[in-house]
Amino acid sequence: MDKQKSLHMTPAEFRKTGYAVIDWIADYYENVDSYPVLSQVTPGAIKSRLPDAPPDSGESMETIIHDLNQLIIPGITHWQSPNFFGYFPCNTSGPAILADLISSGLGINGMLWSTSPACTELETHVLDWLADMLDLPDRFKSTGTGGGVIQDTASSSSLCALIAARERATKGKSNEIGCRDKMTVYASSQAHSSIEKAVMVAGLGRKNLRFINVDDSFAMNPDDLQDKIEQDIKDGYIPVYVCATVGTTSSTAFDPLKKIGAICGIYNIWLHVDAAMAGTAALCPEYRYIQEGLELADSYTFNPHKWMLTNFDCSCFYVADRNELINSLSVLPEYLKNQATQSGAVFDYRDWHIPLGRRFRSLKLWSVIRYYGVEGLRKYIRRHVALGQEFAGWVEANDRFQLMAPAPLNLVCFRYRASDKFNELLLADLNSSGNLYLTHTKLSGKYTLRLCIGQVHTTGKHVRQAWKMITEAAEKLEATI
Amino acid sequence: MDKQKSLHMTPAEFRKTGYAVIDWIADYYENVDSYPVLSQVTPGAIKSRLPDAPPDSGESMETIIHDLNQLIIPGITHWQSPNFFGYFPCNTSGPAILADLISSGLGINGMLWSTSPACTELETHVLDWLADMLDLPDRFKSTGTGGGVIQDTASSSSLCALIAARERATKGKSNEIGCRDKMTVYASSQAHSSIEKAVMVAGLGRKNLRFINVDDSFAMNPDDLQDKIEQDIKDGYIPVYVCATVGTTSSTAFDPLKKIGAICGIYNIWLHVDAAMAGTAALCPEYRYIQEGLELADSYTFNPHKWMLTNFDCSCFYVADRNELINSLSVLPEYLKNQATQSGAVFDYRDWHIPLGRRFRSLKLWSVIRYYGVEGLRKYIRRHVALGQEFAGWVEANDRFQLMAPAPLNLVCFRYRASDKFNELLLADLNSSGNLYLTHTKLSGKYTLRLCIGQVHTTGKHVRQAWKMITEAAEKLEATI
Repeated sequence: MDKQKSLHMTPAEFRKTGYAVIDWIADYYENVDSYPVLSQVTPGAIKSRLPDAPPDSGESMETIIHDLNQLIIPGITHWQSPNFFGYFPCNTSGPAILADLISSGLGINGMLWSTSPACTELETHVLDWLADMLDLPDRFKSTGTGGGVIQDTASSSSLCALIAARERATKGKSNEIGCRDKMTVYASSQAHSSIEKAVMVAGLGRKNLRFINVDDSFAMNPDDLQDKIEQDIKDGYIPVYVCATVGTTSSTAFDPLKKIGAICGIYNIWLHVDAAMAGTAALCPEYRYIQEGLELADSYTFNPHKWMLTNFDCSCFYVADRNELINSLSVLPEYLKNQATQSGAVFDYRDWHIPLGRRFRSLKLWSVIRYYGVEGLRKYIRRHVALGQEFAGWVEANDRFQLMAPAPLNLVCFRYRASDKFNELLLADLNSSGNLYLTHTKLSGKYTLRLCIGQVHTTGKHVRQAWKMITEAAEKLEATI
Repeated sequence: MDKQKSLHMTPAEFRKTGYAVIDWIADYYENVDSYPVLSQVTPGAIKSRLPDAPPDSGESMETIIHDLNQLIIPGITHWQSPNFFGYFPCNTSGPAILADLISSGLGINGMLWSTSPACTELETHVLDWLADMLDLPDRFKSTGTGGGVIQDTASSSSLCALIAARERATKGKSNEIGCRDKMTVYASSQAHSSIEKAVMVAGLGRKNLRFINVDDSFAMNPDDLQDKIEQDIKDGYIPVYVCATVGTTSSTAFDPLKKIGAICGIYNIWLHVDAAMAGTAALCPEYRYIQEGLELADSYTFNPHKWMLTNFDCSCFYVADRNELINSLSVLPEYLKNQATQSGAVFDYRDWHIPLGRRFRSLKLWSVIRYYGVEGLRKYIRRHVALGQEFAGWVEANDRFQLMAPAPLNLVCFRYRASDKFNELLLADLNSSGNLYLTHTKLSGKYTLRLCIGQVHTTGKHVRQAWKMITEAAEKLEATI
């Protein structure tokens, strides 16, 4: 169907279509548990149904939304299904979606303070709020020498921390003359793949990333860290960066920050802490033990877009000394100069990350924090952790299954007491049913199922159903082998 | 006001508040020309009005939207005002905003093909469409060895191209052992600051970035490029990357791609082309001369979030050989392994950029292309270029003003025939009026005003008003000095 004659959407058309889109989303959430969680399409299936060429004449939004339903939805893996237990959660919520919509409407670019002062100041302020809410050390707040900034993902946060660390270790030489020195980076064998990626991007070389051994609970062994640092120094390397993880992706292991921080202090190594999913748990005083020692860190990142009800993208990145970060990333051409920047009285967030342009992302974070309130957010996290603990209890009580790692929060790593192949088949059976979605990892060399509870609308009912489906699928598979 | 009792927003509340937010945006666009374009607040003014602590109990969306109007809007620089002529445009449109809203609602993470096949396949397909729409060389299409991906900004696109270039030049050694070699990068003195930032981030060192001289129209001088490359080779450097610009930020200069490409061919240097704003003009056959020679490039980027009606963020990045890019950025941990990835039959876009997580951004691009159609988009661009040409004509016809650079498209660089100081004061007067917003640059060492026409709702009326205000402000300033 061709659209109306005018080139742009009129305000009246925007209202009408906007209401329809709002309804579309409300309907989606009312029905999302009826879709197969994991999309069941084969490679190329979606693409093959799209026309080879774009239309010459404009089409109506009705036609586009019709095609969304027909052509796109079958290719969606429903991260917002209450039966989604894969990877990590990717939360959304009404207050986040609607505030992000306002951000789209405002359409401002917050690259400099002056290009929308509210974009910078709300972000700084809300990230200070969050620091208090999580009881982060004061040094990460903008009221001292530090401050927070919203990045797209923890991958980017960890990369920016590495750039600043590299500059500190080389006294500003890396940015000037390049990575001439032999520099080393440390993370546990369980750290996120983004650390290896950052080491590659920043020009340090993955051979210079040391994977530190972990203990039985998959947490970094600080003695091995110190040994490897000492060996590297003997061998003429400059250790620049340690990434400690608060809640590994694989199994929610917590690296011992206090001990790691003390070691970083001895050798003057930048300590970055990646708490991408688990960090949100520190909203609750009873889980703050996970970040004990964080006062020794130089930078910290966690993602409200995972488990804090704020739709993607929203990764919070804090540094203890903002000047180290800014000096590592700032380039100021004439066309970006302005009075406020020259005065030094403002933050220009373009100097806190890779991109120049930036969206007004703090609006959605502000909206979420205010809509739920600190108590509401705590209640939300506690529900998920309680469900996680309940599920872990069922696994432990069942002789046919075993827990593969401690399950301190909302992620449970387990396997059926059988071969890797059996567990692979079990996962494939479950996921192809469309009734729930889990992913896997390897722990102690064994193929392990991961059930992560963090989807906004997951309740006890969904977790009980999941366990029922898992045990039944295992029995059935056992019977057919 | 406290919100209702339930923790999450109910579907009914989402519908009601959603309609209100849609109305808020429609109202905003109906009134945006009544706001001062440049926010007139002083540093700290917004922050000082925000409460020190977040609320313990949740608040209603009505309260939050009330505070948005009272506390935030005064700190907005209105990029969507038809009187915004600063920097570059930051377009939005109804079809983009609403499709992006659907993306927020779906809340999927497209990091892997399997985590939502439609997210990957629609993106690949729409970027192939765009390649045809712009008449980009076939080598950039996914149907051959290349392909496109959506990044957040051209800064990130240019960085990823540099990583791939570095890997090519060192035969994979940079990622393995780090930037041990002395590597050089080339861009004109007018290239965007993101190139210098990329060189720093990637560990090459800004001293190894060669700024190539430009001609009278501010386009790169290819002879100087070749001379500098030869000298570097003599001096033991490895030239890895040339960034040519199609439409510099400062003045829309077009680097001569054919000649630059031929030089890159001789020395096997990666040619990246940055067409962030101006690239969109190639939708119209009559402006395609700007990218002549693009078939010699290894990568290309332009931003639909600037001048193609697609709200931020949406930077399209194309490579001629996708394997070079993927091999430079791929790290595959166990927890991300899956059948589709192992089969090699799919793209996993996490390997095409820095972040792991990714939003479903192609929805908004698809929606824009379909809503406007190819002809609608051309019409849109032609209107802005016509207005730019008209404005440039007025400047040329006025003895008191001078054009400072060719104005081939929608950006006009000009100054009043007086001192730099005078022009600085003129700009400050104009911007503090709130009636329009321009920014500046330096060309030929002189302080120069930039008027960029690219805002969606800018018409002849707004451009005429702008010229009237500029000439009157200059007269007034002249009289007071």
